[in-house]
Amino acid sequence: MRKLRYAMVGGGRDAFIGVVHRRAMALDGQMELVAGALSSNPDKARDSGRDLGLADARNHGDWQSLLDDELKRPIDERIDFVSIVTPNHLHYPVALAFAQAGINVVCDKPLVHTSAQADDLSRAVKQSGAVFAVTYNYTGYPMVRQARHMVRSGQLGEIRKVLVEYNQGWLATQLESSANKQADWRTDPGRSGIAGAMGDIGSHAENLIATITGLHIESICADLTSFVPGRRLDDDGSLLLRFTNGARGVLTASQIVAGVENDLRVRIVGTQGTITWHQEDPNRLIHTSLEDAPRILTRGSTSLCPASLKATRLPAGHPEGFHEAFANVYLGAAEAMRARSEGRALAELEGDYPTLADGARGVRFIELTVESAKSEMKWTRWS
Amino acid sequence: MRKLRYAMVGGGRDAFIGVVHRRAMALDGQMELVAGALSSNPDKARDSGRDLGLADARNHGDWQSLLDDELKRPIDERIDFVSIVTPNHLHYPVALAFAQAGINVVCDKPLVHTSAQADDLSRAVKQSGAVFAVTYNYTGYPMVRQARHMVRSGQLGEIRKVLVEYNQGWLATQLESSANKQADWRTDPGRSGIAGAMGDIGSHAENLIATITGLHIESICADLTSFVPGRRLDDDGSLLLRFTNGARGVLTASQIVAGVENDLRVRIVGTQGTITWHQEDPNRLIHTSLEDAPRILTRGSTSLCPASLKATRLPAGHPEGFHEAFANVYLGAAEAMRARSEGRALAELEGDYPTLADGARGVRFIELTVESAKSEMKWTRWS
Amino acid sequence: MRKLRYAMVGGGRDAFIGVVHRRAMALDGQMELVAGALSSNPDKARDSGRDLGLADARNHGDWQSLLDDELKRPIDERIDFVSIVTPNHLHYPVALAFAQAGINVVCDKPLVHTSAQADDLSRAVKQSGAVFAVTYNYTGYPMVRQARHMVRSGQLGEIRKVLVEYNQGWLATQLESSANKQADWRTDPGRSGIAGAMGDIGSHAENLIATITGLHIESICADLTSFVPGRRLDDDGSLLLRFTNGARGVLTASQIVAGVENDLRVRIVGTQGTITWHQEDPNRLIHTSLEDAPRILTRGSTSLCPASLKATRLPAGHPEGFHEAFANVYLGAAEAMRARSEGRALAELEGDYPTLADGARGVRFIELTVESAKSEMKWTRWS
Amino acid sequence: MRKLRYAMVGGGRDAFIGVVHRRAMALDGQMELVAGALSSNPDKARDSGRDLGLADARNHGDWQSLLDDELKRPIDERIDFVSIVTPNHLHYPVALAFAQAGINVVCDKPLVHTSAQADDLSRAVKQSGAVFAVTYNYTGYPMVRQARHMVRSGQLGEIRKVLVEYNQGWLATQLESSANKQADWRTDPGRSGIAGAMGDIGSHAENLIATITGLHIESICADLTSFVPGRRLDDDGSLLLRFTNGARGVLTASQIVAGVENDLRVRIVGTQGTITWHQEDPNRLIHTSLEDAPRILTRGSTSLCPASLKATRLPAGHPEGFHEAFANVYLGAAEAMRARSEGRALAELEGDYPTLADGARGVRFIELTVESAKSEMKWTRWS
Repeated sequence: MRKLRYAMVGGGRDAFIGVVHRRAMALDGQMELVAGALSSNPDKARDSGRDLGLADARNHGDWQSLLDDELKRPIDERIDFVSIVTPNHLHYPVALAFAQAGINVVCDKPLVHTSAQADDLSRAVKQSGAVFAVTYNYTGYPMVRQARHMVRSGQLGEIRKVLVEYNQGWLATQLESSANKQADWRTDPGRSGIAGAMGDIGSHAENLIATITGLHIESICADLTSFVPGRRLDDDGSLLLRFTNGARGVLTASQIVAGVENDLRVRIVGTQGTITWHQEDPNRLIHTSLEDAPRILTRGSTSLCPASLKATRLPAGHPEGFHEAFANVYLGAAEAMRARSEGRALAELEGDYPTLADGARGVRFIELTVESAKSEMKWTRWS
Repeated sequence: MRKLRYAMVGGGRDAFIGVVHRRAMALDGQMELVAGALSSNPDKARDSGRDLGLADARNHGDWQSLLDDELKRPIDERIDFVSIVTPNHLHYPVALAFAQAGINVVCDKPLVHTSAQADDLSRAVKQSGAVFAVTYNYTGYPMVRQARHMVRSGQLGEIRKVLVEYNQGWLATQLESSANKQADWRTDPGRSGIAGAMGDIGSHAENLIATITGLHIESICADLTSFVPGRRLDDDGSLLLRFTNGARGVLTASQIVAGVENDLRVRIVGTQGTITWHQEDPNRLIHTSLEDAPRILTRGSTSLCPASLKATRLPAGHPEGFHEAFANVYLGAAEAMRARSEGRALAELEGDYPTLADGARGVRFIELTVESAKSEMKWTRWS
Repeated sequence: MRKLRYAMVGGGRDAFIGVVHRRAMALDGQMELVAGALSSNPDKARDSGRDLGLADARNHGDWQSLLDDELKRPIDERIDFVSIVTPNHLHYPVALAFAQAGINVVCDKPLVHTSAQADDLSRAVKQSGAVFAVTYNYTGYPMVRQARHMVRSGQLGEIRKVLVEYNQGWLATQLESSANKQADWRTDPGRSGIAGAMGDIGSHAENLIATITGLHIESICADLTSFVPGRRLDDDGSLLLRFTNGARGVLTASQIVAGVENDLRVRIVGTQGTITWHQEDPNRLIHTSLEDAPRILTRGSTSLCPASLKATRLPAGHPEGFHEAFANVYLGAAEAMRARSEGRALAELEGDYPTLADGARGVRFIELTVESAKSEMKWTRWS
Repeated sequence: MRKLRYAMVGGGRDAFIGVVHRRAMALDGQMELVAGALSSNPDKARDSGRDLGLADARNHGDWQSLLDDELKRPIDERIDFVSIVTPNHLHYPVALAFAQAGINVVCDKPLVHTSAQADDLSRAVKQSGAVFAVTYNYTGYPMVRQARHMVRSGQLGEIRKVLVEYNQGWLATQLESSANKQADWRTDPGRSGIAGAMGDIGSHAENLIATITGLHIESICADLTSFVPGRRLDDDGSLLLRFTNGARGVLTASQIVAGVENDLRVRIVGTQGTITWHQEDPNRLIHTSLEDAPRILTRGSTSLCPASLKATRLPAGHPEGFHEAFANVYLGAAEAMRARSEGRALAELEGDYPTLADGARGVRFIELTVESAKSEMKWTRWS
């Protein structure tokens, strides 16, 4: 199988998530980094590219040069896709330019700052036919795919309730005033967008429950708070949700839960059973039901669905984690890219990745959550 | 130490919770059942009393006879208190009559149907001086007392967020139509009151967070649902909470979480740390903090506070559970009763039990939650 | 049902386990303490009896007086049984005297110091017909009874391997030199017997696996150690086991596992599946099998066997613990005592308690373990 | 940093562990596969090499051709090391030839079949100066490195007891007769060596405790069993251990624990505290101590030692697993190889990997275990 060539925008020295993307792409040997504009600071961009062994000709100081250069190259040398891992505010111009140029895009989340921007991207993608993936990485966990399968195939009956919480503690203090690069941009409306914790991790929670259940939110009732003095964006938020099928939900996301690490939990309740998954213990899924004793479903075990087993690299009992989940998102996008380049349709379970539609819905979710938080009325309808 | 004599109202054959109260009172050998009116059905009441070895003269067919008889007896033979374990609608008349007569009362929760009734009880208690306890039994767990101590002594800093969930699955189907006595009255507005799950278990959740934190709710935003067709009361509810100190909260309670047993969890987040407790694993309390590695505090271990150790009977590692927690509520009330009868004030940590004020606040909580659930406005203020 | 009357020998002020026995007996209201010789120190014995409300006439300074007095009383006033909760060395004379007198005995473990003593007891019991129970309390846990049922009914197939470990940390330092009464006698060969940790907790481990599996040990290979300087008995030991059916086993028991509480774990491996139980999380039993996903069996849930449900007082999700397990042992013995007094045979599942045979086998286990520990040969055969 | 070039011997189509090695090496982008002899079947070897994108000139049908070819290439093109992932019986000839040729070797475990073979390798390595690593991959887990640090730095005091168990269930049935390639060679003495489960996973257990504690085994007492009818090697074994410092140990390893996945657990007990680690929950290490409440040490958290943090790629709460641990072993070996090629000494914490000495000790452990299993004497001394 030919390796896919990719360029990275962002992710240079001192960045947090870029290297995670690169490791995820490296894991299976299906993708290779061939070009980049790894920082918005041209010198740092080129230094970072040298660190990673980029050829000088493809090691750019800014993303526009990268794009120009790629478009001049012959197809069999050109990148197959760009991976965008910048702070949020740069997603829009970069993704739009590459998508308009017909180059496949993998972009970090949340997708963009506004639904209008998301619409622009949708139009560009529709026109150019580019594959567009959004790295809601938690959907790549095999047990999340098992959860999706169980809900979608009716094993839980009709869904009645959805509980999702995402607790972190790293912003319990005013970290942004102590030269922490991650805290700095994520608490800055100009770069992060209109939401803080709700954009950074609440959007993961929204995507997780949408991915697993396929339910549509009908109305949102939100309470957003900035606890840390001086902070300009929410660092905590809780939502009541109503879904169009009548299900109810609670979503809470917070970055001030002191001492807690990356505590993302989801519970889906149906008429016949309940499943519970915890990101910090990702190889297990607990299934309780009306009839049987609770079962511990484990990654890689034979009773799992094909989509979960396809996302599994190691036998049961050999823990996989965050990198592999991330890699699965990339593998799904890669399958879609290969299909595009070969002019064929995707078979079932191929191309399993969060799409532009997921990203756009996530942006709308943030907008409506912020709108609801400002409203005195209980319910803000999805529109 | 003299054993306290008690009568029980309710709790006869086929009742669920009466026997739990009796076991809890028996555990430490400080109380003895001497009289009763164990059912609203006179024959069943007397049969039940005989099962328990009650003397015929004190084995009554109705609670009014019980009360009349007790008042005729000399003080050194009369009951020290009555334990009321009937369905909810009977709490008010029974408790009021005994309290007015000056007899100490231990009453199950939720206390009564309306705040007006709670006010009546308060006046009666004020006048007669009776000790009045409400069996919010989860407050009796040693690790809940440790949690209370840690919050109240400032070990978590200022409280910012409170998460409490109480999930059960036993009402996921229409159990009330299949001759299940518990389901029958708990889903009947006439006996259960204006709320279903929110009254039955949401009230425990409210009491638990109030007991641990001492925070006051400022506003409630509620969504209550009846999922099971034909059910007349809520079987699921979720609330956003704002506290007067600025803290935020989420409370969710549900009896339709299929396959889940008695999954009560609480997490308290402060500026300095976070504690997490789970009722199904009650001997442990997880404490995370800004500075140290997470700690597992275990019941009975030497680093715990005096109130927690006082509520402990066995060495660490020898599991205690629901019965002991229940017994601790009774022991606290018993200490208050002894103090009353001896005309002395309670020393610190004596008389550690949920009071009439807790019960009354719980009733108000249910009223405001139901009011909020009907409102189109987001926030219903505590008043 | 008539309450059974009992006397207690040992268990006075400052004792650890006596009060646990009393609470266990009190829990269900089926037994009442009417007499005692609560300490080997006559004054302390009587003070302790007064604390517990014993009538002066039945509050004795020594166990011989207790026995004499009881034998003089009419049957309908006499104790139904004696509960012996002294240090080990007193089990033999007390139990023998009461058993010879035809009084039912409940005796703490390990039963006695030597197999010769156990034989004496067996003869006495055979002659007098007394019911004799040994409080291997861990067998009273509902999930242990479920484990026994699963093994005995063949759900695991043929048993191949048995792993049991019992780790405590309370004797990691030389606690016996600091006026700790428990440490003092348990590390003293004169009172504890020929084994330390192996007698105190290793014997529980032996009993647990025998109770669950019914397998017979064929050979023992033991290594016993005294880690704490100056200690006269083992505080740590590990054994390889061979069973007569060809199964293999590992048993390790230690009281020097610093910081660990009461960590008793057992795993039973059969050709078809494996079960795992942990005493510090006693309401769950994990069942893995060749065919299905692992299952979490929970106390009180509907799929459990009758013997487990019979040993259950509370609905699933309402934790039970050590007291209830202890109480179950007493309830089983009580059923046997009632059957004896009524001259009837025990129905199935009645009289579910560790018998004198269990106690005698436990003594032999200790003897052979100590013998093996001294041997240079690998295997010491059970004989 | 220049990527290290490697060749792989074994690990072709249908192999289990080869792809895990390749993913581990790919993860950090520091190594690239440039040559191979991926199967002992020449056609399959070449097909497998083509799958992986090997150039025809470096895609060999047997390992001798690979070695010949490499030695003819200029240094700046030649492989930096060979990764040997064949069944056990091929480790010796391949490793010896490459080591004699001065090429660095990474070899799977158990190293070879006999101590004589291990001695040959040691001589070859001594002579040629080649770096030689053995992929005892569990030592690469960050929390194992933390455990090692805690023991070695005295945080647990003097070590008294070591408990290690490694349970798997995949060989609970006669899988070797059903065309399972892994089961086939691992149960064949000719390819697996003199031990089955004890060689395959018992050797991991031995290495894990040696790595963490640095203790030396003084004597072994072993019981090995083949439970599955017709199986020629042990599928279950348990050992009592004595260490030269006086510590005691229990090691049990089994592949017939039906339904269990990859359940490797280790507990190290010192005079001051105890640590417990479980491979299926690898991001946590539980630390109990005489003084404090139990602590949950989590991978990536700030209180960990430098060696643990160095082995960490993701922030706390973002699970890492088996691949990353494996990768850490390779990174350690790579640092040693870079040092060798640059003619410099390794700095502290560089070159953190299991060495040939670890591999040789593991072989001796297997030999003595098998010897002990055949002996009627309790103890077989390490020699």
